[in-house]
Amino acid sequence: MSIERDKSPIRLAIAGLGTVGAGIVKIIQKNADTLALRAGRPISITAISARSRSKDRGVNLSGYAWEDDPVALARRPDVDVVIEVMGGEDGPAKACVETALKFGKHVVTANKALLAKHGNALAALAEDCDVALRYEAAIAGGIPIIKALGEGLAGNEITRVMGVMNGTCNYILTVMEATGDDYTDVLAAAQAKGYAEADPETDVGGFDAAHKLSVLAALAFGTKVDYDGVQIEGIERISLADIVNARDMGYRIKLLGVARMNDDGLEQRMQPCLVPAASPLGQLEGVTNMVVAEGDFIGQIVASGPGAGEGPTASAIMGDVMDIARGLTMPVFGIPAGDLRAAPRSASGSDAEYYLRFMLLDAPMVLSKVTGILGKHGISIDRCRQYDHDSDAAPLLIVTHNTNRGVLDAALAEISALDVSLAQPVAIRIENV
Amino acid sequence: MSIERDKSPIRLAIAGLGTVGAGIVKIIQKNADTLALRAGRPISITAISARSRSKDRGVNLSGYAWEDDPVALARRPDVDVVIEVMGGEDGPAKACVETALKFGKHVVTANKALLAKHGNALAALAEDCDVALRYEAAIAGGIPIIKALGEGLAGNEITRVMGVMNGTCNYILTVMEATGDDYTDVLAAAQAKGYAEADPETDVGGFDAAHKLSVLAALAFGTKVDYDGVQIEGIERISLADIVNARDMGYRIKLLGVARMNDDGLEQRMQPCLVPAASPLGQLEGVTNMVVAEGDFIGQIVASGPGAGEGPTASAIMGDVMDIARGLTMPVFGIPAGDLRAAPRSASGSDAEYYLRFMLLDAPMVLSKVTGILGKHGISIDRCRQYDHDSDAAPLLIVTHNTNRGVLDAALAEISALDVSLAQPVAIRIENV
Repeated sequence: MSIERDKSPIRLAIAGLGTVGAGIVKIIQKNADTLALRAGRPISITAISARSRSKDRGVNLSGYAWEDDPVALARRPDVDVVIEVMGGEDGPAKACVETALKFGKHVVTANKALLAKHGNALAALAEDCDVALRYEAAIAGGIPIIKALGEGLAGNEITRVMGVMNGTCNYILTVMEATGDDYTDVLAAAQAKGYAEADPETDVGGFDAAHKLSVLAALAFGTKVDYDGVQIEGIERISLADIVNARDMGYRIKLLGVARMNDDGLEQRMQPCLVPAASPLGQLEGVTNMVVAEGDFIGQIVASGPGAGEGPTASAIMGDVMDIARGLTMPVFGIPAGDLRAAPRSASGSDAEYYLRFMLLDAPMVLSKVTGILGKHGISIDRCRQYDHDSDAAPLLIVTHNTNRGVLDAALAEISALDVSLAQPVAIRIENV
Repeated sequence: MSIERDKSPIRLAIAGLGTVGAGIVKIIQKNADTLALRAGRPISITAISARSRSKDRGVNLSGYAWEDDPVALARRPDVDVVIEVMGGEDGPAKACVETALKFGKHVVTANKALLAKHGNALAALAEDCDVALRYEAAIAGGIPIIKALGEGLAGNEITRVMGVMNGTCNYILTVMEATGDDYTDVLAAAQAKGYAEADPETDVGGFDAAHKLSVLAALAFGTKVDYDGVQIEGIERISLADIVNARDMGYRIKLLGVARMNDDGLEQRMQPCLVPAASPLGQLEGVTNMVVAEGDFIGQIVASGPGAGEGPTASAIMGDVMDIARGLTMPVFGIPAGDLRAAPRSASGSDAEYYLRFMLLDAPMVLSKVTGILGKHGISIDRCRQYDHDSDAAPLLIVTHNTNRGVLDAALAEISALDVSLAQPVAIRIENV
């Protein structure tokens, strides 16, 4: 069981020189001596590729070979590891990664969309080619959660993994609560400051975070990546009223991804949830990400840190590069790609408490009718609150005991059809942590 | 750069069958299939050793060879990895670990005292013998912080690492705040419940947590383990008044370990500190541990989880075992033992804000005298609060701006010598996070 170490320089190629690519150049230039000492070998950049060669990126690139074509970069014989930080689920990023793997180069990527859509095929390809495909930077930015989940907790059967993995959404929800401004106004302000994209749909629609969740789930449960199996709901319809009401009842609203293995299959949800205000998730503010992992022996661990940005993403990329340089590699999703199970999608989902908000006509018997319908469906009420109101429309809040979403939806449809129901009822899952 | 995997069974020996040892047996028995799938090879226990063979530990040990002597266990030819969970910085634990390494077996240990005292020699021995020595379970229990710091953040120059790493102390401080009971009473209650040892000195004196800090510092900064260089102060002298006053001023008191590299050397402190109440460290309650790591590119990550107990410790041990089974090993403290620097101990320490509590005679000119002495030493005051009082003794609280401890101590000595100073002033460092 002797440990042999490769002392030859490890030669990197970087495909993509946006913020993250430039950050990788900086970390390698600044920390070269420490990196070499830790890896037991020099870490050097051989070649780079990006769309524009002439753009000033604030780093000295003169020592590196230039390739216009990332696929040509991936084929270079003087490269051991290709770092893909271009982004995009298809096109050049996919071609670059596939080519690199086929040419026997390890790949480190920050590309969650690519992994969510093509992770299974890429994992199989990497393992066939006997190289590593690593993606710490793709999930929750600088937090080394892939390492924690896939290696640190490898003794456990993972029972649940969840997280706030989109900084833009958490920033918007945090600001809405702090300022009392509406979603639309906060989003516009975030866009003006550059915290949200001009086209924010990928973030606020929950898709970016869902990409990450699907990859985490594969690693946690040894299942094939099933992005299409994620139930996705964005934050666009979260109202200020719900944020304020949730806070009054001891909760905060987060765009929370949850993956768990139920008896009938894998449950993957990315949706706004209420979490206890005093829990770590409830206390999370701004753009910080947080992942909670639970296992049969560990209980629960919580990790938080910067979910994006030049430095944190470069840090995560370099964690993977250092592992490869040190000879630490393993199957892409913890077990061989061929052994990943195609888990059925959980049809019923797990039961939960729900926060319900109704807008009802202020008239006799109304509360009785609503709670009667809930009761008829077997939904029992933990807490109920009706706020003072100026008009004939009375807002009613209910926190239920554990119930199933399908049962709840049937009850809500019935309540919604009542004459006294003045607006579509709101139901938000409470994820207890 | 081909990845070859060893598919032969990996054979474990467990030295010590207390709570943790029994937990390791349970995790291997319960999760055998998953472990084998993830490791790519079966994980099996060959032999065990403990003080009493006949004791019922609630697990079936009939399939394992028994050794009365842990050193004999460590020599067995049918063992690849020795798991040392006996404890104790010398004696049988040390002999067992040294023997295992010399006989070419990898070692996984939960023994922080052993590493704090003999870590440098053991690291050199392990590397000479070309085997791994792993210790995730020794530091912050189930939190995979050794992996996060040594691997996940390996791209960074670590700038500061700190943590609450003794659950007993944090439990006592949390209960004191919640109940208003004195230290002595809370400690007695904790002992009655089994949360604190009959001889609590190792915990409440800060020594256990200091062991952990010294190991973390070596990994973070690439320095030799220097346990004797840790400034240690326990929680025995924390008064309820300080807990309450700190809370009133927006802080909470934690037994916090901090390691940082200053211009004049390595600073290692394990002492009660004030931390902002709204920070993750400030919100930490009960026996949970938390470690905060900061680096030049990552910024800051925070990890929390159970710091002790059967399941979490077994989880951490198995994370190490799985790494070894997967062939993932590296130098004990991240760089070769021979390259670890013998960093000088920082003489001056880093500046900080301080919380000061004085008990002063209620008389004219007293506040002026006290603040005048602080000012003469160049210590400026951020906030000051004097509470209402029934007697002639007036409690005065001051939060200073950044100052040096040496300067502060000189000022406090001068104040203490005043006629109007009725008790030894209290000074607690504020660690901003």
